[in-house]
Amino acid sequence: GVNPDLASERQTASFSVEKLTAWLDGGAEQTRLRRAVVEAIERDPVFSRENQYFQSQNERYEAAVRKAVHLQKKMHEMGWSQDGPEFKYIDRAVAGDIAFLLHRIFMRSILMLGSNEQIAKWIPLASQYQLIGSYAQTELGHGTYLQGLETTAVFDVTTQEFILNTPKISAMKWWPGDMGRSATHTVVFAQLYVHGKCYGIHPFIVQIRSLQDHSLCPGIIAGDIGPKMNFEHIDNGYLMLQNVRVPRENMLNKFCEVQPDGTYVRRGSQKINYFTMTSVRISLISGEAVAPLMKACTIAIRYSAVRRQSKLKPGEQEAKILDYQTQQEKLLPQLAAAYAFHFINDYLQELFDRGYREIQRKNFDALPELHALSSGFKAMVTQYCTSGVEICLRACGGHGYSLLSGLPSLYTKIIASCIYEGENTILLLQTARFLVKSFMAASTGQSVPPSVTYLAAAKPRKCPAKNKLDFLSPAIYTEAYQHMAVRLISSTAAKLQDLIQSGAKKHDAWNQCTVQLAQAAKAHCHYITVKNFAETVEKLESKAGIQKIMKHLCDLFALHGIFSNAGVFLHDGYISGAQMDMVTASYLDLLAIIRKDAVPLVDAFDFTDKSLNSALGCYDGQVYQRLYEWARKSPTNKQVSPAYEKYLKPLLHNTRSKI
Amino acid sequence: GVNPDLASERQTASFSVEKLTAWLDGGAEQTRLRRAVVEAIERDPVFSRENQYFQSQNERYEAAVRKAVHLQKKMHEMGWSQDGPEFKYIDRAVAGDIAFLLHRIFMRSILMLGSNEQIAKWIPLASQYQLIGSYAQTELGHGTYLQGLETTAVFDVTTQEFILNTPKISAMKWWPGDMGRSATHTVVFAQLYVHGKCYGIHPFIVQIRSLQDHSLCPGIIAGDIGPKMNFEHIDNGYLMLQNVRVPRENMLNKFCEVQPDGTYVRRGSQKINYFTMTSVRISLISGEAVAPLMKACTIAIRYSAVRRQSKLKPGEQEAKILDYQTQQEKLLPQLAAAYAFHFINDYLQELFDRGYREIQRKNFDALPELHALSSGFKAMVTQYCTSGVEICLRACGGHGYSLLSGLPSLYTKIIASCIYEGENTILLLQTARFLVKSFMAASTGQSVPPSVTYLAAAKPRKCPAKNKLDFLSPAIYTEAYQHMAVRLISSTAAKLQDLIQSGAKKHDAWNQCTVQLAQAAKAHCHYITVKNFAETVEKLESKAGIQKIMKHLCDLFALHGIFSNAGVFLHDGYISGAQMDMVTASYLDLLAIIRKDAVPLVDAFDFTDKSLNSALGCYDGQVYQRLYEWARKSPTNKQVSPAYEKYLKPLLHNTRSKI
Repeated sequence: GVNPDLASERQTASFSVEKLTAWLDGGAEQTRLRRAVVEAIERDPVFSRENQYFQSQNERYEAAVRKAVHLQKKMHEMGWSQDGPEFKYIDRAVAGDIAFLLHRIFMRSILMLGSNEQIAKWIPLASQYQLIGSYAQTELGHGTYLQGLETTAVFDVTTQEFILNTPKISAMKWWPGDMGRSATHTVVFAQLYVHGKCYGIHPFIVQIRSLQDHSLCPGIIAGDIGPKMNFEHIDNGYLMLQNVRVPRENMLNKFCEVQPDGTYVRRGSQKINYFTMTSVRISLISGEAVAPLMKACTIAIRYSAVRRQSKLKPGEQEAKILDYQTQQEKLLPQLAAAYAFHFINDYLQELFDRGYREIQRKNFDALPELHALSSGFKAMVTQYCTSGVEICLRACGGHGYSLLSGLPSLYTKIIASCIYEGENTILLLQTARFLVKSFMAASTGQSVPPSVTYLAAAKPRKCPAKNKLDFLSPAIYTEAYQHMAVRLISSTAAKLQDLIQSGAKKHDAWNQCTVQLAQAAKAHCHYITVKNFAETVEKLESKAGIQKIMKHLCDLFALHGIFSNAGVFLHDGYISGAQMDMVTASYLDLLAIIRKDAVPLVDAFDFTDKSLNSALGCYDGQVYQRLYEWARKSPTNKQVSPAYEKYLKPLLHNTRSKI
Repeated sequence: GVNPDLASERQTASFSVEKLTAWLDGGAEQTRLRRAVVEAIERDPVFSRENQYFQSQNERYEAAVRKAVHLQKKMHEMGWSQDGPEFKYIDRAVAGDIAFLLHRIFMRSILMLGSNEQIAKWIPLASQYQLIGSYAQTELGHGTYLQGLETTAVFDVTTQEFILNTPKISAMKWWPGDMGRSATHTVVFAQLYVHGKCYGIHPFIVQIRSLQDHSLCPGIIAGDIGPKMNFEHIDNGYLMLQNVRVPRENMLNKFCEVQPDGTYVRRGSQKINYFTMTSVRISLISGEAVAPLMKACTIAIRYSAVRRQSKLKPGEQEAKILDYQTQQEKLLPQLAAAYAFHFINDYLQELFDRGYREIQRKNFDALPELHALSSGFKAMVTQYCTSGVEICLRACGGHGYSLLSGLPSLYTKIIASCIYEGENTILLLQTARFLVKSFMAASTGQSVPPSVTYLAAAKPRKCPAKNKLDFLSPAIYTEAYQHMAVRLISSTAAKLQDLIQSGAKKHDAWNQCTVQLAQAAKAHCHYITVKNFAETVEKLESKAGIQKIMKHLCDLFALHGIFSNAGVFLHDGYISGAQMDMVTASYLDLLAIIRKDAVPLVDAFDFTDKSLNSALGCYDGQVYQRLYEWARKSPTNKQVSPAYEKYLKPLLHNTRSKI
């Protein structure tokens, strides 16, 4: 049965959980479809994550390969295809522990960078798993800065081959997933040399393991890079190349080719490449950042409604920890953020789809804006969600620290999202570059992309709010965010100009502004998130029950941001100290209001117990029983440790007297 | 050899690293002693942590027991005693992975709570390891709130025994270290019942495992609580008691006793117990919070001087990432904080020693202040250091995410310090209670303890700084912190009073102020940290070379705090927007100055390569070579995974055509 402390939370919901779930999914039909996929996967014992927290890196890898192979069968069996409506729910259903993700990237890179002949040759082989692919870009000494890669590919005209080498230890490929133990092939990025001249980075298909017995091919040294904070199931690998020869046809040559005589030919526009990065960054926001935060909120909020500690009122029973203001202040802003980012993901997807349609018509105008938004939001959302998951973990006290709570794994995994697909600080600076450029353009009256037109708009000098209720007006707080973003962008742009005018070199001036530029980029994304949340709530008018609670969450998200970043709003007096007190009062009032719907609000995310894989977060709230049952299954309880015979027994028996 | 990129950093040090190390240690003789202990331990292969990152929970436990047993031998061999000058360096030398820490707590609790007879009986047995002790306080359903514990001990007059029970699953003891697999005895905290009347929580010595064969005693169910985020080497355990009988003499009875007829007698003052908690909280600051942050800074800063990425100036070599302002802004404030907290630890130790002397003279006057300071600083320092370690980890990009960097383990361990020995939010609220009380007393002219006299002092209304250099004056910024702390404490106290005066019940009013109360407590600790840092620097006058760089670090710590918490300084206009721009300018200038000494400043912490156990952080800076060598030793490279024969081979060979 359901723990009465959790059951009571559901009886007082101010809205229909089922309707909210359907709305979040984009319609009841999508909910039905999602649940069907999740159920089919979870019913299948191969996909069980029951023992995940007890497994070694070797066991996790083996399970992930097993699942990946089985998934192919399963998809065939269920009639799910890569283009079908079910596909997007599979990742959510398997909940991450699966191999061959880099095989997908291998295929995508061939589709994107390969000629039609290359696609015709390699894609069918890869689709049918006649090879296993990986994607070898990053090196031990080189990450984001592609031009710095040290791997070389020298064209040998006599044999019509490229000779690949990793000339130094820092040139070794490092980190590619599926490469440490699984892959037979990989796309290697290397500096192309023809007749002694360097043409920069190009992609080459290289076979690294035998298709017969999986042994390493001649000239290949490869292996696993060892233990990581998470992703134990993935065989991130290293790869050294020593005079490895591949035929001329193995250079992916949609955009450039080395002809038999060594002539280098470039063709077509590479702008589409930027679009790929954009698409990857946007696509990870939902699954890799927002979903983990939603799960962490579900676990922490359900647990906080069940956990009782100390007395709030003398003489009463110990209080639910969710009734403490400090606990609400930890968890509820994270809940509001999870909703905010769910909606920003919709916003970005829509922008992206529109951009994609334009690009297919060879109109690349939207690319800079899309690139800036995808970079900034990737950075802002992953960072925010990472810190949100950590807050949830810590809010669960000692039990949150147990792997069985599910929270440590969520944290150790999501933190990687701040680094991969572009390190966050570097991404924020890319966004900042776009913002400064747009600001300059806007101030000289030039037209700018839609998301930054606000930089040109005239602004009031003071926030007009007169009492704490005024701060529940989206117009008031959205305007405050806008004002703050404009101020940070314009003042940093001014500092940059000043430095350059007083003789600093451009790159030095830029470096001296980067702390503030990164801050400005975050402010821009924060503003758009608030604005988009407010607009989303407004559009909800027909769904009154849901609109009301969503309005509260939107207010909370916005006011939490002002409360936590008070300095940037107070700096120029746009918000006064007295107004900040109103913000604080409204913000704290909201905590008590939203607390009443906290459990229904996480229920609406609709994660199954199996997908949460948490002793603290299950729907029935039987946390203590489950912690105990799960702990007993631990390998530490499955055997008497050799430590007893070896060390404890001699110690204890080494006695002159007995007790 | 040393990587030239790291060697060059050391050639330009503005001070003598050796002198700074000696000063940090409290004299060159202490440095010599510390190094001798560390060397003796590290030379002994039993204490090796070489394979730590590859070990399972079972292996870590076995190694920890082995080390704990061996350490007894080693200490004997080396002539080190528990009271000797070497003892305090042993923990640093073994670097944490060792068992029997709870055995120490077991002994301490008997020494503190037991009668002379009990001490005479149990302490010799424990000292000679004729038993292994643990300390069973926390329950599955109960943590910090001791009164809520559910375990019972009912006195049976007929047999002169206590009958112990954990009547519900939530009453099960949960978390005690050394209890899951090692301990033979434990101190159990239980609600004492005599003749049907409850006398509250009391401690009982209970045997849980046979001294002959280590089997569980009758009525005992115990085991390991399973995997955690870290502390895999500790067998944190669970314990159920079913009608377990212990003799009357097993209740620790220094302060209270049940006489043979069931008469309950209380004696002496229990105030000393508060002092114990205080002592534990202060003692963990250095080893469990500051040292890990120092290690993380050492790793991240050395790595940042070796790692090169992108070009800062066109045409030049790729730049050291430490030369980027954003990287400096991540790492150098953490470095400054590590120094700040090293000094605050000295400050607290001194206060504590003084308090201890007074208490021995039966003067308990300093207890409330000591308790408030130890609670607040435990919370503030562990939280700050945890987030500092996380920043260091993320600042190392992908390689920081590898366990081989040492950073993930530092993080997953230090985060626990925010929870154990008092959850941080609860501790901050204890400090806040003291502050509010002191503020009330001060405002009515009563005398208050030394650390809070500032609450009564008259304050200027505006910061007098006129240019950015003024913000390098400790008087200016210390005053700003003081003003801010007073404002937060007084405004929250006022809110509390207002609520009560408008009819709110005391506990409701308190709960509605807790978010702001916690903030005020942090502000108080932040102020004292800055003030103490400034005073420490001032006292250094004779050591000019060191004083200069310490002054820079002090300035950085202070200005970083103002920059990052701008809102609380701007709120009432004490610091204006224009002054905040000066703060920012001085703060950013300092980054470039301290960057030059960054490597010498972490070298001065004097951690050996073995104690860092990091492929990124070694003294010689050969990071890529070491990452590769360590990765090759991973168990994932020691065997061909069964996944190949079971899943990959059938997949790859299931082909209609061959490539």
